[in-house]
Amino acid sequence: MRVFGHVVGIPEGSEFENRYTLSQYGVHRPLQAGISGSQDEGADSIVLSGGYEDDKDYGDVIIYTGHGGRSQVTGLQVADQKLTRQNLALALNCQRGTPVRVIRGYKHTSPISPKEGYRYDGLYRVDSYWQEQGLSGFVIWRFRLEKIHEQLATDTVEEPPSIYENSERIEITIQRIMRDTKLALSVKEMYNFECQVCQIRILTNAGLYAEAAHIQPLGMPHNGPDSIDNILCLCPNHHVMFDFGGFSIADDLTLIGLEGGLYKEPKHFINPRYLQYHREHFADKI
Amino acid sequence: MRVFGHVVGIPEGSEFENRYTLSQYGVHRPLQAGISGSQDEGADSIVLSGGYEDDKDYGDVIIYTGHGGRSQVTGLQVADQKLTRQNLALALNCQRGTPVRVIRGYKHTSPISPKEGYRYDGLYRVDSYWQEQGLSGFVIWRFRLEKIHEQLATDTVEEPPSIYENSERIEITIQRIMRDTKLALSVKEMYNFECQVCQIRILTNAGLYAEAAHIQPLGMPHNGPDSIDNILCLCPNHHVMFDFGGFSIADDLTLIGLEGGLYKEPKHFINPRYLQYHREHFADKI
Repeated sequence: MRVFGHVVGIPEGSEFENRYTLSQYGVHRPLQAGISGSQDEGADSIVLSGGYEDDKDYGDVIIYTGHGGRSQVTGLQVADQKLTRQNLALALNCQRGTPVRVIRGYKHTSPISPKEGYRYDGLYRVDSYWQEQGLSGFVIWRFRLEKIHEQLATDTVEEPPSIYENSERIEITIQRIMRDTKLALSVKEMYNFECQVCQIRILTNAGLYAEAAHIQPLGMPHNGPDSIDNILCLCPNHHVMFDFGGFSIADDLTLIGLEGGLYKEPKHFINPRYLQYHREHFADKI
Repeated sequence: MRVFGHVVGIPEGSEFENRYTLSQYGVHRPLQAGISGSQDEGADSIVLSGGYEDDKDYGDVIIYTGHGGRSQVTGLQVADQKLTRQNLALALNCQRGTPVRVIRGYKHTSPISPKEGYRYDGLYRVDSYWQEQGLSGFVIWRFRLEKIHEQLATDTVEEPPSIYENSERIEITIQRIMRDTKLALSVKEMYNFECQVCQIRILTNAGLYAEAAHIQPLGMPHNGPDSIDNILCLCPNHHVMFDFGGFSIADDLTLIGLEGGLYKEPKHFINPRYLQYHREHFADKI
């Protein structure tokens, strides 16, 4: 049975001599593959061991490159990666909020990698995923991982009964964190909280609800701007689909993957550069 | 102009002699009201000063009682609170992810309150809101506030260009954190990822997407169980509406606030006790 979350008895920081002991303790079962997972359940663990030229390790944030397309002989990227198998497993972690164990190995080129052996570095959530052209020129799938900090601050008086405290703590985590910005509200108001794809308006006890979707995402590595020409007003359903490759938008605002076109207020300029970025990174096919 | 987030030059932990200086520095403008905000923009700050018998302060988590319904003479609750004005402002913070400044005052009955004067204790997000019968017997609105921890962990090698680092950091925050649990997936699979309200299925590049909605929420103070009889399979649109009082469900599964009924698989037992909890706390009217 695949174990998601911490493995009982193996605290964060535990060190292992080699891939064999790592596997024996159930921290990362496969002896060779970097991603342990299935495309039904998601990924339970990954090993960072310097295999991919495109990986980036900032400590709390990791840009991890998917699996596949490399020559077994030279280790070089020789074909496009696909969103299948272990890559699809990591995408499911993102959509479902399943945490993944991260292990850093001695071959991994980062100042915080262990000098020898392997170290279990705790749980990360898969914050987002996308495709891009890698350094090799072939398509790679990338996953932004963010560390899950589980401890509460020290000024907590009486710890409330937390969902993290019960026996299922390792299964429970964080999913789809949305960032609302200063300009988000102005775009929602421009459309009177109506979805630009389906024109639905969500009514709640506090009034109308819509979501602001950044076309080229905020934050590294995308670093899209928080500007009105990069923001759409969407209902939650179409926001999920837009973020997870369910549809994209052509320069003439025709929808790709859905019928029809994007509704746009005349005064709302949408920058085609950001639409192109979305198509290249988040559409089903480049 | 209402300032959301930190006030420039006023770090967390700053102390103030009285409500007048608190107001002068722009940390909390009103001299008497506990909530500073408007029902268009949201709330920018609140003061905890022991006014409400129902408040709870766990440090990182605060259960805050809304405004209204108290006698000016005795200070006792003498009428129902409504989701209007400053209470509606705090509800908007929840829906939009706007952070609220929290100030603790000397009158507040918590071990971490200052002995004298007022202390700015940083930014909190409004995690959820609901109504209930207060200790007085009247309806009160309650808001679960959770502290926003802004610092990254010390093992970060090279801090990535974070959205928290630019000049708009105070506007940007976290919204609608969803918790997926062990049993969530089994309920989604039972419905083949089809929404129990509208039967829509959301298609993404990683397959079908649905959300698991806990009827009586997990975590304090609701402490609903993570069990299949407390979980629904919903599309993101109906999940938002369900969490924010857009509709509720009668014991016979008729929808309240929407046309029609909830679709249910014969083998899926939904516990009427949790439906009742939802109606009492999240429906528009008790």
